Amino acid sequence: MPGNTFGKLFRVTTWGESHGPAVGAVIDGCPPGISLAPEDVQHDLDRRRPGGRFASPRKEPDRVEILSGVFEGRTTGTPISLMVRNHDVRSRDYNELAKTYRPGHADRTFEQKYGFRDWRGGGRSSARETVGRVAAGAVARRFLEGEGVRVRGYTLALGSVACDRGAMDLDRADENPFFCPDPKAAQAMEELVAQVRSEGDSLGGVVEVVAWGLPPGLGEPVFDKLDARLGAALFSIGAVKGVEIGSGFQAARKRGSENNDPVTREGYASNHAGGVLGGLSSGMELVVRVAVKPIPSISKEQATVDRDGTPRTIRIGGRHDVSAVPRIVPVCEAMVLLTLADFMLFPYPYRLKHR
Amino acid sequence: MPGNTFGKLFRVTTWGESHGPAVGAVIDGCPPGISLAPEDVQHDLDRRRPGGRFASPRKEPDRVEILSGVFEGRTTGTPISLMVRNHDVRSRDYNELAKTYRPGHADRTFEQKYGFRDWRGGGRSSARETVGRVAAGAVARRFLEGEGVRVRGYTLALGSVACDRGAMDLDRADENPFFCPDPKAAQAMEELVAQVRSEGDSLGGVVEVVAWGLPPGLGEPVFDKLDARLGAALFSIGAVKGVEIGSGFQAARKRGSENNDPVTREGYASNHAGGVLGGLSSGMELVVRVAVKPIPSISKEQATVDRDGTPRTIRIGGRHDVSAVPRIVPVCEAMVLLTLADFMLFPYPYRLKHR
Amino acid sequence: MPGNTFGKLFRVTTWGESHGPAVGAVIDGCPPGISLAPEDVQHDLDRRRPGGRFASPRKEPDRVEILSGVFEGRTTGTPISLMVRNHDVRSRDYNELAKTYRPGHADRTFEQKYGFRDWRGGGRSSARETVGRVAAGAVARRFLEGEGVRVRGYTLALGSVACDRGAMDLDRADENPFFCPDPKAAQAMEELVAQVRSEGDSLGGVVEVVAWGLPPGLGEPVFDKLDARLGAALFSIGAVKGVEIGSGFQAARKRGSENNDPVTREGYASNHAGGVLGGLSSGMELVVRVAVKPIPSISKEQATVDRDGTPRTIRIGGRHDVSAVPRIVPVCEAMVLLTLADFMLFPYPYRLKHR
Amino acid sequence: MPGNTFGKLFRVTTWGESHGPAVGAVIDGCPPGISLAPEDVQHDLDRRRPGGRFASPRKEPDRVEILSGVFEGRTTGTPISLMVRNHDVRSRDYNELAKTYRPGHADRTFEQKYGFRDWRGGGRSSARETVGRVAAGAVARRFLEGEGVRVRGYTLALGSVACDRGAMDLDRADENPFFCPDPKAAQAMEELVAQVRSEGDSLGGVVEVVAWGLPPGLGEPVFDKLDARLGAALFSIGAVKGVEIGSGFQAARKRGSENNDPVTREGYASNHAGGVLGGLSSGMELVVRVAVKPIPSISKEQATVDRDGTPRTIRIGGRHDVSAVPRIVPVCEAMVLLTLADFMLFPYPYRLKHR
Repeated sequence: MPGNTFGKLFRVTTWGESHGPAVGAVIDGCPPGISLAPEDVQHDLDRRRPGGRFASPRKEPDRVEILSGVFEGRTTGTPISLMVRNHDVRSRDYNELAKTYRPGHADRTFEQKYGFRDWRGGGRSSARETVGRVAAGAVARRFLEGEGVRVRGYTLALGSVACDRGAMDLDRADENPFFCPDPKAAQAMEELVAQVRSEGDSLGGVVEVVAWGLPPGLGEPVFDKLDARLGAALFSIGAVKGVEIGSGFQAARKRGSENNDPVTREGYASNHAGGVLGGLSSGMELVVRVAVKPIPSISKEQATVDRDGTPRTIRIGGRHDVSAVPRIVPVCEAMVLLTLADFMLFPYPYRLKHR
Repeated sequence: MPGNTFGKLFRVTTWGESHGPAVGAVIDGCPPGISLAPEDVQHDLDRRRPGGRFASPRKEPDRVEILSGVFEGRTTGTPISLMVRNHDVRSRDYNELAKTYRPGHADRTFEQKYGFRDWRGGGRSSARETVGRVAAGAVARRFLEGEGVRVRGYTLALGSVACDRGAMDLDRADENPFFCPDPKAAQAMEELVAQVRSEGDSLGGVVEVVAWGLPPGLGEPVFDKLDARLGAALFSIGAVKGVEIGSGFQAARKRGSENNDPVTREGYASNHAGGVLGGLSSGMELVVRVAVKPIPSISKEQATVDRDGTPRTIRIGGRHDVSAVPRIVPVCEAMVLLTLADFMLFPYPYRLKHR
Repeated sequence: MPGNTFGKLFRVTTWGESHGPAVGAVIDGCPPGISLAPEDVQHDLDRRRPGGRFASPRKEPDRVEILSGVFEGRTTGTPISLMVRNHDVRSRDYNELAKTYRPGHADRTFEQKYGFRDWRGGGRSSARETVGRVAAGAVARRFLEGEGVRVRGYTLALGSVACDRGAMDLDRADENPFFCPDPKAAQAMEELVAQVRSEGDSLGGVVEVVAWGLPPGLGEPVFDKLDARLGAALFSIGAVKGVEIGSGFQAARKRGSENNDPVTREGYASNHAGGVLGGLSSGMELVVRVAVKPIPSISKEQATVDRDGTPRTIRIGGRHDVSAVPRIVPVCEAMVLLTLADFMLFPYPYRLKHR
Repeated sequence: MPGNTFGKLFRVTTWGESHGPAVGAVIDGCPPGISLAPEDVQHDLDRRRPGGRFASPRKEPDRVEILSGVFEGRTTGTPISLMVRNHDVRSRDYNELAKTYRPGHADRTFEQKYGFRDWRGGGRSSARETVGRVAAGAVARRFLEGEGVRVRGYTLALGSVACDRGAMDLDRADENPFFCPDPKAAQAMEELVAQVRSEGDSLGGVVEVVAWGLPPGLGEPVFDKLDARLGAALFSIGAVKGVEIGSGFQAARKRGSENNDPVTREGYASNHAGGVLGGLSSGMELVVRVAVKPIPSISKEQATVDRDGTPRTIRIGGRHDVSAVPRIVPVCEAMVLLTLADFMLFPYPYRLKHR
């Protein structure tokens, strides 16, 4: 099966290119009877576009239209089609890029796979593609809210600036353009971004997503464990090069006696597992982290070749962000939302509860 | 769909519990005409059971039987059924565990999902389940060899002992029981294991898997990118808490100018991407790493509860490994093999080449 | 998985309700490099709307918009999103139907499944839904044409009027509004329709679809045999109550010596099999037939109940066709096209030929 | 995805060839807590082998072994692996058939797809393959019984001998080797079989399957309607050339006023729909029929060619049944059982009831 569909029971198919007429998503399997208005989707789309001064100046009004699946303000159980028109599609900025491969981008690999490519703004491999994910994630969020599940992402680190876990307050993450829960770190991020922008370079970072309220027993052993599906979900985002659950790579250096979470009547005395045991939700907070690579589009000169194999140098100008962080935060949230919504529809443990 | 099937075109379904009659796998979609003998599968099964003195003394002869799909020594294109009988299934060791939840295991989450559980040796969530993966992976390896693709895993770190990249020689990884390519590190690992065993504790580690010979263009954007499927594959292994591709979490701290791989006529001047660009294979070496948590079964005393919620302490005796590393190495290899075999059957870029 | 997606490698997801803003389809997996213009799709959509005097007077301009997946006139290998706006959505005709169940329709079963329903014009269970199928089928047709495969449907019978096989000329099927290849039968159909319309009743019929140029070996034993997938494809069309392949139900009354097709060097001396042997295409013409039930919306009085269970009578007025035939013919074609396009992308026999 | 898996949530993968070591099935997604013993499966396997004097004298003890997924007599929610060893695999009967194509069989199409074939007894395309279906169907039956759903198949016609609907008594269908509910017809069938056997020819027939107790709302519009999935299920059986639901092909000749089922408070005043409205179960009896072609293996001389294309004549001797009916009856039942079990696990209407 081709790869533009995510999920098994709450199923999302996204479509659209950076400079085509529109981008969108079709959700198949959303439960019926959920109250849904365009504003619900718009809210998450707007989070993807913080509009702070560090964001891309490219204008993306991103007005979502709900084309099907909703009747009298409620989902009907039939496919929900969401569309966002592309407006600012000045492909002239990119004309020179039709023949030269941008380092760190999918330009050549797309040609190797498909024979040619829509080179305008990266085509399907543009971050613009994530609009469909965020729109669909917003619908998943509406469903999950009704089930008592909440999902929140935030920036843990931008380049060398990392949050101090002791100083983090998730409620303050929306107060700065970085979705950064440590106000002091947010300040340092601002300075770092200004400096790196002036150097014509770019930054990576680390994003964490947490989910509360999951019932225990979500996940489908052995290949569709909750962590396996989360891994797929998060690695499917363009810039992600690493994913951790709970203690993650630190677990590799720990002893079992340190890393095991003692079992209590109500749950667990610690959460090194990050909310997943044996591939199933444990009822504790779900905690995942992703490593985001620096944006490959930089104005510094880089060595590359063109389609004929002739060596070229390239400087990528235009309106690029300095980092995929923070705009990737709502995308990471969306992928966690879609993963969880999907598992919430699997027969067990739900049926057990209602027998 | 329930979770015991992996892959879309090269599809593997595994089955079996630790103390049931047998474990096995059914492969659907293996290309016809591939020479396959039981010995091919046996070889990889034997690697999963190094038999060194650090391995579990539990005896697992693990003789594989090919029940279908092979005629006159060649695969026919029909399902290949592989079975390994369980022999050493003394469930008496575990009888006390029927009612008490082992910390770090899936005991309680399985009950929360399914209502009850096969508590003998961990049932389906036992590492015994991976026999089916390794057997199927061996068939994938036969297919991939014919396509010029090679896959190799090894131990990068065990607890605090890490390989020195400069001292690594992959050809020597099979000379020690740790699949460790740095002979000096292997020596230190041996000492560490002896010490930790005497403490009744356990160790985590880091495993790296590399694949050579991939054609460019493998992967299915946007949700089934090569890295997304690898992430799912590797996170589906019991003890894995983190996965990285290429520079991984280090990419989060780099600048774009450092992390981008300059494009050359033949490929790329570096490989921070780890062989994946835009979710498609680049033609460079594929490089993935996984963080393995310490084995939760330790003989040190731990706090837990029983099924009634009454607090208990538990010491897990018996024949447990000190670490999932190195036995997890062939399992990681198997999951990479299965992922790659699957993508090799997708229509593009294959059809392009033969048009 | 919810049911709005068809196919595995050439995958179509349709969406949209009769009286919502639009209907459409997303195709994932269409091969790259196929020349595709809106007119190609429009042509098939127009066939679905013959506009003859027996067709519904409801106006459906049905202008298709290609929203993604095409660049410089060629498919790119990324999802192709097709949308047709709904224009004539006067739901006032239906207002009285919100509470009363129409016999032969899905009104009550939808409520039983989802809790409530979009009652406007049948919502998702309206024949309007097939616009997405036909649009996607047109894209499949473009792909198949390039592979030498041709698909054609026509009306074999309308009510009691059946074609005389000896008088059939497929090239003349487009000359009458019934897609009827027997001009005399077409004349009789016209008269029958006029009479039944005046009685306020409706008619069923039989449609046949033939495909030429299939390579031998298409189909995936044992559950996704070519005939099994065709059966699913055709039974998924609203009004279809029976499907036959080749000699179909007549085979039940034949002897083996009559029904077997003698094998020749080039093919087979007869085609009772209808082009499928052991679930695989034989290289002969593919021949399938469907039984179409009479349209349930009739102006004759019928007995029913309302949502409260109170007995009611109902007369369904408005702009309904007298029969789903002939408008169902392009829909049947579309489902055969989508089925064949899907199988054409499976690895075998294709890879064998190009090894 | 290759074709040896059926179902989405109650998922069955079958494997095995006629003359390989064994045949079997793996069920993934069977609900936990269902009481299951080998005898439950054995019972249905024995029905597939009536042992009457019209059945094949080939001995098939067909002892099933449950290899996983059951603990203390109950299903655990993990995969259930079922295996039946092949015993009577004298391939010498078939040796001459290695090079000559049998008319009406998949010999040449398998070679065209896969390049070569396991020619022993038809290999994977042998009716022996259905053992796995019937075994898995027996497990589905155990699940469905607990949900109040019952499924029963029987023979409606064998060659020219058809049941008289007025004389049918389903409770008497097991009293004769034909699963024929009309005792008089059963008598005539016996005579017809004796005669056709003496002629060295074979017979087709018609099988009907009925299901009682289905909750309304099963089915997944629009492509996985209940009838669409049943169509796929039944057409996937080797000898099936036609499938009907409810009034089937007769509906094509009816008026809407005759074919519509009046709606009542409790259900419907008639059941021309066969229990399916808009692709969803209506709560009425589900009624499907299949047309079974005459067995192609006949001892009469037939014209064919060998692998080199040289014309040959062939007489197929050995231990063949005169008709796939009645042994196909339990296979048809199994496919209906598997289809219904699958839909019973879909989220709606189940969740609605328990909200």
